[in-house]
Amino acid sequence: MSWTAADAPGLTLAGDAQVAAGVVFGANVTVHEGTVIGEGCAIGDNAVLGKQPTLSAGSTARRGPLPGLVLGAGCMVSAGAVLSAGSTFGGHCVVGDLASVRERCTIGRGVVIGRGVCVENDTSIGDNTKIQSNAYITAYCTLEESVFIAPCVITTNDNFMGRTEKRHALVRGALIRRGARVGGGATLLPGIEIGEEAFVGAGAVVTRDVPARKLVVGSPARVLRDVPDEELL
Amino acid sequence: MSWTAADAPGLTLAGDAQVAAGVVFGANVTVHEGTVIGEGCAIGDNAVLGKQPTLSAGSTARRGPLPGLVLGAGCMVSAGAVLSAGSTFGGHCVVGDLASVRERCTIGRGVVIGRGVCVENDTSIGDNTKIQSNAYITAYCTLEESVFIAPCVITTNDNFMGRTEKRHALVRGALIRRGARVGGGATLLPGIEIGEEAFVGAGAVVTRDVPARKLVVGSPARVLRDVPDEELL
Amino acid sequence: MSWTAADAPGLTLAGDAQVAAGVVFGANVTVHEGTVIGEGCAIGDNAVLGKQPTLSAGSTARRGPLPGLVLGAGCMVSAGAVLSAGSTFGGHCVVGDLASVRERCTIGRGVVIGRGVCVENDTSIGDNTKIQSNAYITAYCTLEESVFIAPCVITTNDNFMGRTEKRHALVRGALIRRGARVGGGATLLPGIEIGEEAFVGAGAVVTRDVPARKLVVGSPARVLRDVPDEELL
Repeated sequence: MSWTAADAPGLTLAGDAQVAAGVVFGANVTVHEGTVIGEGCAIGDNAVLGKQPTLSAGSTARRGPLPGLVLGAGCMVSAGAVLSAGSTFGGHCVVGDLASVRERCTIGRGVVIGRGVCVENDTSIGDNTKIQSNAYITAYCTLEESVFIAPCVITTNDNFMGRTEKRHALVRGALIRRGARVGGGATLLPGIEIGEEAFVGAGAVVTRDVPARKLVVGSPARVLRDVPDEELL
Repeated sequence: MSWTAADAPGLTLAGDAQVAAGVVFGANVTVHEGTVIGEGCAIGDNAVLGKQPTLSAGSTARRGPLPGLVLGAGCMVSAGAVLSAGSTFGGHCVVGDLASVRERCTIGRGVVIGRGVCVENDTSIGDNTKIQSNAYITAYCTLEESVFIAPCVITTNDNFMGRTEKRHALVRGALIRRGARVGGGATLLPGIEIGEEAFVGAGAVVTRDVPARKLVVGSPARVLRDVPDEELL
Repeated sequence: MSWTAADAPGLTLAGDAQVAAGVVFGANVTVHEGTVIGEGCAIGDNAVLGKQPTLSAGSTARRGPLPGLVLGAGCMVSAGAVLSAGSTFGGHCVVGDLASVRERCTIGRGVVIGRGVCVENDTSIGDNTKIQSNAYITAYCTLEESVFIAPCVITTNDNFMGRTEKRHALVRGALIRRGARVGGGATLLPGIEIGEEAFVGAGAVVTRDVPARKLVVGSPARVLRDVPDEELL
């Protein structure tokens, strides 16, 4: 069931939100101030678009006014998803049920953000990258184009876990190069770089950078072999 | 607080949905076309029942019309849960808060699907199986009867992570036999079979099939001993 | 966008709920019987406050009437969060989007419960503890003050995974002492104690107690060195 903005049940639409032609809504959608929804987007039941961040007193995320959330044409946002103000999505992205994307993220075109995924603040995701269900992409990550993140992957960005003042300068998320693939449940330590078209096996704990086109497995992860040519982009 | 369909606040109920006697709803529930809700079911606040899948352009999940979601008698669906069209639940299942079950799943009787769990498409779950909080059951899995999946277990189904055409024929989820138990945070590689009444320790990474009634631990998981008789069904 | 109880869209407020001065609500909030919301709290879109638990027939959680949820002054509860009856929060806590806290939990002052976190029943959390996104805190855990739980940490409490009668007496969650830090994706076996100011590396599988001020890494986790003085509280 979907409806236009004129007749969607339970729709709460900020006065200055922009809704392009052909946009449809499920039930009980909330659209916050300044949100821009591109042509032909479909927004699922209970989705929350463009909310302002909820920061704790001690949060190190930047503060200050944020521009509205921007969704490019043809995006599909599924039931219960929560997207924050200050982020932009290119056209034809899919956001799964109960996923979240926080503030100041730049999401490319054709990106898939799976069910239950959390993308934290200040992260950048390239075109056609896929992040599967329940993966966790921490703040200050860069995922280039055509990256594949399997379900339940874990990324981290702070070796000091909230202690010392110098940590603020050292927080660094993952840098995942074009076409790399990271297997289900793998954990990446702070600041790890995964090279182009590299492959991280399921369940690996990655403590060092992974060279381009190498396959790593284990805890801690070690290079096992090259990625086969037939699996390259 | 719960209400009948006649007076539940914020209820959006498709015209052709079937609601049996004694069903109660929380606030802001959405029930999509063709959904069948059995006698005495209790549906929590913000639950979404019978939604059509949101598939990306590149998704390999099957497409086409789906029959409505069917909930057997006495099911309890908790707050914010999202259940897709095309799946069926036997009687007296419990679905936890913020859990999802996707399309074409067959869920037995008395199954517990915990808080935040995701069961992907085309998966089959036997009677009295329990899946605890935040576990991830990928597409094309089979869980037999009386299986116990501890919190945050991870399953996978694609060794190629989205590359090559031949992968489509090789995608295979986990096969978890009757009475097997899988410990918290364990990761199962694609196509793994866990034998009857086997036990996988918490945090294990399972790279080979596990024989019936064996206990495995570690990364990669190795057989440690037999499951004690007193713990068999 | 936020509103007072008098004008919040889609607010369902139990007749006996208590809402102090200065409380604001997002859209479609549900507040169950007996809930007490302290001065200046901010409740996000679709939040569910004070729900009664949904217990399966075989659940071992205690049953019986629960007092209402109590939120201290200045708490912020984010979009889609689900908090159960019978729990209490001190002042100035933050609960992230899509997080849950179950029944009979005692949460201190200034606690942060991140996005997607699940805190199960009968757990106690000390002042100023931070639990980051998607971490899983099982039933019967104790986290003391100023603990830091990184994203996607997994705790467990039942070595028998639902079998035998004697297990009921042996269920034991984690005990995490003051100022301890647990890294992203780490898994703690049942009944583990993490000593004061100890540090568990990302991805570790902790099978034995960790002494105070020691740093452990790996699977199974082993002591690597002392926590540096500059990182102590």
